[in-house]
Amino acid sequence: MSILVVGSVAFDSVETPFGKAEEVLGGSATYFSTSASFFTGVNLVAVVGEDFPDEHIAGLKGKGIDLAGLKKVPGKTFRWKGYYGYDLNQAHTLETHLNVFSSFNPEVPAAYREAPFVFLANIDPELQMKVLDQVKKPKLVACDTMNFWIEGKPDALKELLRRVDLFVINEGEARELSKEASLVKAAKVIMGYGPRVLIIKRGEYGALMFTASSMFAAPAYPLEEIFDPTGAGDTFAGGLMGYLANTENITEENIRRAIIYGSVMASFNVEAFSLQRLHTLKPAEIKDRYYEFRRLTQFEDI
Amino acid sequence: MSILVVGSVAFDSVETPFGKAEEVLGGSATYFSTSASFFTGVNLVAVVGEDFPDEHIAGLKGKGIDLAGLKKVPGKTFRWKGYYGYDLNQAHTLETHLNVFSSFNPEVPAAYREAPFVFLANIDPELQMKVLDQVKKPKLVACDTMNFWIEGKPDALKELLRRVDLFVINEGEARELSKEASLVKAAKVIMGYGPRVLIIKRGEYGALMFTASSMFAAPAYPLEEIFDPTGAGDTFAGGLMGYLANTENITEENIRRAIIYGSVMASFNVEAFSLQRLHTLKPAEIKDRYYEFRRLTQFEDI
Repeated sequence: MSILVVGSVAFDSVETPFGKAEEVLGGSATYFSTSASFFTGVNLVAVVGEDFPDEHIAGLKGKGIDLAGLKKVPGKTFRWKGYYGYDLNQAHTLETHLNVFSSFNPEVPAAYREAPFVFLANIDPELQMKVLDQVKKPKLVACDTMNFWIEGKPDALKELLRRVDLFVINEGEARELSKEASLVKAAKVIMGYGPRVLIIKRGEYGALMFTASSMFAAPAYPLEEIFDPTGAGDTFAGGLMGYLANTENITEENIRRAIIYGSVMASFNVEAFSLQRLHTLKPAEIKDRYYEFRRLTQFEDI
Repeated sequence: MSILVVGSVAFDSVETPFGKAEEVLGGSATYFSTSASFFTGVNLVAVVGEDFPDEHIAGLKGKGIDLAGLKKVPGKTFRWKGYYGYDLNQAHTLETHLNVFSSFNPEVPAAYREAPFVFLANIDPELQMKVLDQVKKPKLVACDTMNFWIEGKPDALKELLRRVDLFVINEGEARELSKEASLVKAAKVIMGYGPRVLIIKRGEYGALMFTASSMFAAPAYPLEEIFDPTGAGDTFAGGLMGYLANTENITEENIRRAIIYGSVMASFNVEAFSLQRLHTLKPAEIKDRYYEFRRLTQFEDI
C-alpha cells in the first residue's frame, strides 16, 4: 500500500562537530519519503522554488517517489541553517527562510486521495488539517509536530490530534505539550487528545511507544560516530510508516517491528550528511541491522 | 554463592521535586546489599560511627546480610546532603561529611576472603585495591566509581581496572574517563584498561553493556513517578550481582538477564525515599516486573 506524505522539501546548511555541509537537500518530506521508499510507494505533497534543481527531482523519482504533488512555484526553496554541538540530540537553528513555503497551501492530487497511509510531517497544524480534509478514510493517519506549533498554535494542534491515530513527537516536546515531567503521565495526557498510539523519540536514547494497554522501549543503535543527526526523526518515521504500509498490518505487534525498522533507517541516516547514506543504502543492510537490533535487545533465548 | 561488598553506609538528607527526607539510611553498600539480598547472601565491609542506631543494624541483618565486616568506630557516620531538580538523572551535592569514613581502612574478615563474587562500590580506588589484595581468586570482580576519583586519582583507578572483570559506570563518567563523546568509542577505551564487561548506566534511559563481541541495550522501566533516584545505581548493581551470584553463571547471556534484574530492582527503589520500597518489596513483584521488562522490549513473537 502507498503512503501520502505532506511536509517540507528544503536546502539545509548544517555544521556538526564532525564537519559541515552547505545547501544540501533536506526537509521533513524529503527524509521521510526517501526512507519510506525502501518499503513502499510514496506520494509526496510539497512545494519548492524555481531554484530547485532537476537533479534532485530525478533523485527522488529514482527512489520511486511520486512527485505529482510537488509544486514548483516562483521564488526560492525553503532554507534552514543550523548546528549541533556534542549533544547531538539538540539542533540549534541559526536561520530559517520559509521562502515559497510561507504561502504553501497543500493540494492533494486526485490520484492520492484514497491513500491508506497518511503522514503529516512537521508543518503548520492548520495545513496538516487541510490535507486530512482532502483524503478519504485512510487506514492510518500519523503526524509529527514541533515546539514552534505547540507554543504558537496549541488549539489547532489539539484539533488536529483528534483526527490522528499515531503521533510521533520528541521527548522535550511531549513534556511541553502535556505540561508533565514524567513521560508516562505525559503520554496519558497526549493520548487523551486523540491518538491511540504515541511514539516519543529520544534521539540517541531511542524511542518509547505508548498505547492504551502497553509500553514498548526501543533503543537507538549505538554508533561509533553520529555524523549529522539532521532528518533522523523524519527518517525514523519514514521507516516506521513504510514498514506498516508494506505489511498492511497496524496491530501493536507490527507497530513494534515498524519502530525497529524506523530506528534502523535513522541509524543509517545519521552516518553522513544530508541523504547521502540513504542514497547508497542496500536492502540487505537494512535486514542485517534489523537483526543487530534483535541481538542488541534480547535477554532470553539469545 | 555469596557476594562480598565494600562501600559506604551513610545518612542521606535528600530533597526532590516530590518531597524531602532528613538523615535517612543510605550509602552505596547499603543500597547494594539490600538489593542483592533478594537473590543471595551478602557479606558487607564498611564503617559507621557510634551514632549508627541498632535499628538499622537489625534491619540489615533481617535481610540476611552478614555484618561481621561492618565496623563501628568512635565518631559520626558518613553524611550526604543533596537535591534533585526535574532532571532526576542529575544529583546536586550540598554537603558531604566523610566523618568516620575519612579514615576507613577496609579489613576483610577471614570468613569473607574466598568470596566468589566481589563488588567494590564507589570509594577511593586505593581502598578498592586494598580489598582486592585481601581476597583469593574471585570468580568475578566488579566495581563502580565516580567523577571525583576519575579526576582526583586517575592512575590508581586505571591500576584498579586492570584487576576488574565488570565495570559499572554512568554515562557522563564514561565520557570523562575515556575523553570520548561517542559511547561506543568510550567503551573501547575503557575496556582497554582491563574490564571485559562494561556497563554504562544512563539513568532513566537504561543501561548499555559492552563486551568484546557484542552490545546490549536495556531500557529503564518507565514510571509514573520517580520519587527519589538516590541509590538507583547501587540498587541496580545489587540486583545485577545478586542474580549472577545466585545463578553462578557469568556467561554474556546471563549477564544480560542480570542487567534486567538490576533494572527491575532500581525501578522499585526510586519509587520511595531511602530504602523504604526495598523494605516492603516481595519476590513475586520482582518476577512480575521482570516479565514486564520482557513485554517492554520484545518486538518479535510477543
